Amino acid sequence: MGEMGSEEANKNWVLMVTAQCPTNIAVIKYWGKRDESLILPINDSISVTLDPQHLCTTTTAAVSPTFDTDKMWLNGKEISLAGGRFQSCLREIRSRANDVEDQEKGICIKKQDWDKLHVHIASFNNFPTAAGLASSAAGFACLVYSLSKLMNVKEEQGKLSAIARQGSGSACRSLFGGFVKWVMGNEADGSDSLAVQLASETHWDDLVIIIAVVSSREKETSSTTGMRDSVETSPLLLYRSKEVVPKRIVQMEEAIKTRDFASFAKLTCADSNQFHATCLDTTPPIFYMNDTSHRIISYMEKWNQFERTPQVAYTFDAGPNAVLIAPNRKAAALLLQRLLFYFPPPSDTELSSFVIGDKSILEDAGIGAMKDVEALATPSELKGNAPSQRFRGDVSYFICTRPGKGPVMLDDEDRALLHPKTGLPK
Amino acid sequence: MGEMGSEEANKNWVLMVTAQCPTNIAVIKYWGKRDESLILPINDSISVTLDPQHLCTTTTAAVSPTFDTDKMWLNGKEISLAGGRFQSCLREIRSRANDVEDQEKGICIKKQDWDKLHVHIASFNNFPTAAGLASSAAGFACLVYSLSKLMNVKEEQGKLSAIARQGSGSACRSLFGGFVKWVMGNEADGSDSLAVQLASETHWDDLVIIIAVVSSREKETSSTTGMRDSVETSPLLLYRSKEVVPKRIVQMEEAIKTRDFASFAKLTCADSNQFHATCLDTTPPIFYMNDTSHRIISYMEKWNQFERTPQVAYTFDAGPNAVLIAPNRKAAALLLQRLLFYFPPPSDTELSSFVIGDKSILEDAGIGAMKDVEALATPSELKGNAPSQRFRGDVSYFICTRPGKGPVMLDDEDRALLHPKTGLPK
Repeated sequence: MGEMGSEEANKNWVLMVTAQCPTNIAVIKYWGKRDESLILPINDSISVTLDPQHLCTTTTAAVSPTFDTDKMWLNGKEISLAGGRFQSCLREIRSRANDVEDQEKGICIKKQDWDKLHVHIASFNNFPTAAGLASSAAGFACLVYSLSKLMNVKEEQGKLSAIARQGSGSACRSLFGGFVKWVMGNEADGSDSLAVQLASETHWDDLVIIIAVVSSREKETSSTTGMRDSVETSPLLLYRSKEVVPKRIVQMEEAIKTRDFASFAKLTCADSNQFHATCLDTTPPIFYMNDTSHRIISYMEKWNQFERTPQVAYTFDAGPNAVLIAPNRKAAALLLQRLLFYFPPPSDTELSSFVIGDKSILEDAGIGAMKDVEALATPSELKGNAPSQRFRGDVSYFICTRPGKGPVMLDDEDRALLHPKTGLPK
Repeated sequence: MGEMGSEEANKNWVLMVTAQCPTNIAVIKYWGKRDESLILPINDSISVTLDPQHLCTTTTAAVSPTFDTDKMWLNGKEISLAGGRFQSCLREIRSRANDVEDQEKGICIKKQDWDKLHVHIASFNNFPTAAGLASSAAGFACLVYSLSKLMNVKEEQGKLSAIARQGSGSACRSLFGGFVKWVMGNEADGSDSLAVQLASETHWDDLVIIIAVVSSREKETSSTTGMRDSVETSPLLLYRSKEVVPKRIVQMEEAIKTRDFASFAKLTCADSNQFHATCLDTTPPIFYMNDTSHRIISYMEKWNQFERTPQVAYTFDAGPNAVLIAPNRKAAALLLQRLLFYFPPPSDTELSSFVIGDKSILEDAGIGAMKDVEALATPSELKGNAPSQRFRGDVSYFICTRPGKGPVMLDDEDRALLHPKTGLPK
C-alpha cells in the first residue's frame, strides 16, 4: 500500500475521522427480538432524536499500519471489542470499505487493504453513562458512522442503520435526526430491518424535552436480558406486538406529520406504560420504574387532566428516568416549575448542576437561583387537595433539551479523541 | 305479627343473629366487570379463603318492630346504607325471607312482614380496615350471610354468593372456605355468576400464609374505579380475560386438586403480575405496588431461583401489601426469617405487635425476641453478591395465617355486636 514512496517510509501515518451521533428516545417502544443475533425486532418503533448538544457520543476512528490489533476506549478506558455485537459491526463495515486516498498526508488505502489493517476507536459520552440514557444507541451509531466515513463506505444512511442495529437495536434510530421509524422488516437476513426518517428536527421544532434523572438504589435488568425474558414468558407481549403496536405506529406517524401534540402525548404515554406492563408480565417480573417514576407520572397525569388537554408527554426506557416532552417553551417552563416544586434538590446543590442542558428554560420559568425553587407555589391542579409533599433529592438532576439532528462529522482536529500521531487516546 | 299476646305487648322484642365470615385472596385475579351494577366479571377467578381466626368480619343483624329505619355500623361508627350495593343486597335477601318463629321469645315473623320491618346491622373487622386487606369482601359476605340467617332464607350457599357479589364482587368467594372459584357465568341477570368451592380448607392444610402489610405514602385508586378505567382503556385487559385467564383457571384447578405447589406458585405469581400489568396498561396508569412490593417480589424470585423449585408464592391485590404462601411450616419459617431479615421493624417496635396471627411460625423460625431478628444471617441466595440492604420499617407488620373455613354462626350472645334489648351497638 502507499503509492508515494516505499511502504517503509509511510508506515507511521495515522488516518482518522471524528463523528458525533445523537441518542434517541422511543415514543413507540421496541421491546422484544425475533432474532437474537441479528437483532431483529418483533414490532416497528418510532423515536425522537435528542439534540446532540446536550446528549451525544463523540467517536474518533483511526487506522494506521502501526496498529497491531483493533482497540477501543470508552470514556477513556479501554474496553474489549471481542463481543459479537462489536464484531458484527466491524465485519459489516469492513466488507463495504472502499479505496481511501489522502494526498496531503500521502496515504492511499486500497479496498482490499482494509482486511489487513487494524483500527483504534475512542468514544466519549457527554452525559453520565450510568444515568441509563441509552448510551449504547448513540455509541453503536457513532461507531458505525465513524468507521463508515473512515473506510469510505458508500452505503446510504438506511443501510448503515441496519449495521448499527446489529450493535444495539435502538442504535439504528440514531443515524437520523428528528423523528425516526425503525421498520421491523421481513427478511430473514435482516437487510430490510432499518431506520427511516419520518421528519427532520426542523419539522416540529417547538418541542422541548426535559429528562429527569432519577436516583435509584436498585440494580437494573439489562434490556437485552429483559426483552429476552419477556419474549419467552410474557403472554401479553406477543399480543402487543401483533395487535396494538401496528395501529399505534400509524397513529403516531400521523400525529408527527400533523404536529398533533394531544395525539402524540396520548400515544407516547400509553405506549411507555404498555411497555412497562409487558415487563411486569414477564417471569420473573422486571421493574424499571420506581416510586419516583410513578410519582412523576401521577403528577403529569394530574396536570394534563386539570388542563383538559395534554401539556406534557412522558416516556420511560429500561430504567427509572423520565423523559418529558412539552409542546412548546411556555409549557416547558410550567413543566420545569412543577418538576422543581415536586423534586427540589438537596440543600447543598448548585442550581447550575441541578438543571443542565438548555438553561434558557430555567429563565423562562423565572428561576434564577435556588431561593426561587424553594419559593415555587403549589401547582394549581393540586390546590384544594391535601397538602402536597415535596420529594427532595429523589431526582438527581434535570437535562433540558429538544429534538435534534443526526450524525455529523467533526472536522476540527482538536475534537478528535485520539492523538493524530500515535492513534492513542489523548 | 306475634301469635302470643297482642301486637302492643310484643313490640319491644329484638331478634338477632351473629355470624363470622372470612376474607379471601385471589390467586387468579378478578379485574374488570362486564356489568357495573350487577357486578359481573369478565373472567373467572380463584381464591384461597383465609383463616377467620386472624382475618374476618363479625356481623350482627337484628330486627325489631322498634326500628324505624335500616341502620348499619362498621367498626362502631354508623355508615350509610343508601348506596346501591347495600340496597341490592338488602333487597335480594328480603325478597327471599321466610317465616321466622322464636317460641322462647314469643316472636313470630311472617314472610310478608319482612317488607315492613327494619334491620340494624353492626359489623367489625378483626384487622385494620385501612390495611387494604379486602375488608369489603368479608364485609359484604357477612352482611348477606347474617341477614339470610336472620330472615330464614333457604337458598343454597352458591345463590347467597351471587347476592354477596352484588355488594362487592370478591365477596362472593368469601361464602366458602378453602379454595373457591367465582364462575363468571353467562346470564344477563347474573344468576349464574357465583362462587363454587373447589376444595375445602382441609384438602391442602399444610399451606402457610404470611401477609406483609406495607407502609405507603400514596393514596390508592379504589378497585371499583380502577377496574372500570382498565376495562375502558387497557388494550391488554380484554386479551388477558379472553385468552390467558381461561387456561390458567384450568391449570390452577388442577394444581389445587393435586396439591402441586410448584404449579400453584408459578400460576399465582404470574397472574398477580399480569393483573398489575393491566393496571399499568390503563390510562391513566394505576400503580398499586410500590418499591417495597417490588423488593419483596425480587427477593422471593431470587430465593425460588436459588432453590430451583418454588419455596413461596406471592400475590398482591389492589394495594402494596404482599400475600405470601408457603407450602408448609418448614418453608414458612424460612420465609419469615427472610422477611424479617429484609424488613426489620423500627427499633422501638415490640416483636409481638410486628408479627401477629399464628405466632407459632415465629417459634419455628427460632425467633423469640427482637435480638433474634437483628441477629438473622444473610439468606444463602444473597451470599457472594453485594452486601445486602435491610429496609427497616418498610413493612408495618406481618400476619401469619393459613387457609380457613367459610362463614359460621356465632351462637354465643356475648359475641353479638348489638345490645339484645335495644338493638343498638354495645
